[in-house]
Amino acid sequence: MNDQETPIAELKELVREFVAERDWRQFHTPKNISMALAIEAAELMEHFQWLTPEQSRAVAKQDKDLAAVAEELADVVCYALALANELGIDLAASMELKMVKNRQKYPAEKYRGKYK
Amino acid sequence: MNDQETPIAELKELVREFVAERDWRQFHTPKNISMALAIEAAELMEHFQWLTPEQSRAVAKQDKDLAAVAEELADVVCYALALANELGIDLAASMELKMVKNRQKYPAEKYRGKYK
Amino acid sequence: MNDQETPIAELKELVREFVAERDWRQFHTPKNISMALAIEAAELMEHFQWLTPEQSRAVAKQDKDLAAVAEELADVVCYALALANELGIDLAASMELKMVKNRQKYPAEKYRGKYK
Amino acid sequence: MNDQETPIAELKELVREFVAERDWRQFHTPKNISMALAIEAAELMEHFQWLTPEQSRAVAKQDKDLAAVAEELADVVCYALALANELGIDLAASMELKMVKNRQKYPAEKYRGKYK
Repeated sequence: MNDQETPIAELKELVREFVAERDWRQFHTPKNISMALAIEAAELMEHFQWLTPEQSRAVAKQDKDLAAVAEELADVVCYALALANELGIDLAASMELKMVKNRQKYPAEKYRGKYK
Repeated sequence: MNDQETPIAELKELVREFVAERDWRQFHTPKNISMALAIEAAELMEHFQWLTPEQSRAVAKQDKDLAAVAEELADVVCYALALANELGIDLAASMELKMVKNRQKYPAEKYRGKYK
Repeated sequence: MNDQETPIAELKELVREFVAERDWRQFHTPKNISMALAIEAAELMEHFQWLTPEQSRAVAKQDKDLAAVAEELADVVCYALALANELGIDLAASMELKMVKNRQKYPAEKYRGKYK
Repeated sequence: MNDQETPIAELKELVREFVAERDWRQFHTPKNISMALAIEAAELMEHFQWLTPEQSRAVAKQDKDLAAVAEELADVVCYALALANELGIDLAASMELKMVKNRQKYPAEKYRGKYK
């Protein structure tokens, strides 16, 4: 699987199947999944916690650290997809809609080079 | 856009373009993005904070609440994609790899109906 | 040490000394401490992640689980105190002030038994 | 109230009373409080999200930003105390115990100027 060819739906199915095989939907209330997602996001953040901004960029070139970060990021995305599965959310449609809002909220000419 | 037809790469490009147009890559150190991702995950969790497990499942049937949750989830995924962009991570490949590990760590027959 | 007799300042001093002995103030930017605090909060949450509301209350009566939770909570408070140390914040004064605001925002008669 | 003179127990009582007056203990399962704590920690982190390390240190000298950060930190501590109340945890004792463990895990001579 790779990002160029894999539609979101295929990743959603991967997660759905994993959860179904273990009969874990009973634990997968949206509340619990949102907690799991926040916990995985914190574990991802842990990799960058004490790094300088420059050191955090350098992770891109350190194979071992990068693999560890990619694994944590995969965990985050797994739970994002699990929540989408549980609530029947179309992620691509939601992202498209949110990006329209973001473009209105942060016009490029006004926010160029500024975060606020 | 919809999950059935949209490859991950297309969503990544949507985010990459938005960031580039605003010249925001200077703020997008992996460290900062990991913080932003954790913050969005907390905002998502906020929607379920005081709900009972049952009430959290019922969000799937409440149009207004569901739209709000979908928007927060889109924010989470945006930053997950921004981090993948910045570090050159292939998300689908990472997820496939992680699911292999997860299947070894949590054999279906042993974990059926149990989370530990 | 116990809650009845220990002033906040004494706990702050405990943390300040620990950090100073290791020459860790260089890593203790408010930004980094805020990340560490969020990470510890997630580790605390992890203990309750898959529990029902009732199971989470029952932790109060399970010595081993309670000790583990108390340890995570101590980590959270350590970083809260480290941040107060670094920024020169008086926590008791800040809490007193915030509780005045909270009482105005959530009048008892209006919010009794309701969280919103 | 100030950190020099206020024992932890007095802050715990402030929170206990606030919760009792609103009949909010029904929502204050340890699970829910741990979520609230993580959410407040994320809101605190939001103040430092896009700042450089140096800018985050400079918050100590900016009255308005500092007051906002102190307020978020108070929220974090409120929920830490609420959890201690709900589970019957003595925070000072837990911190003293944890600092002993920390001293063993991170001997000063070995970790001086190093975070790992």
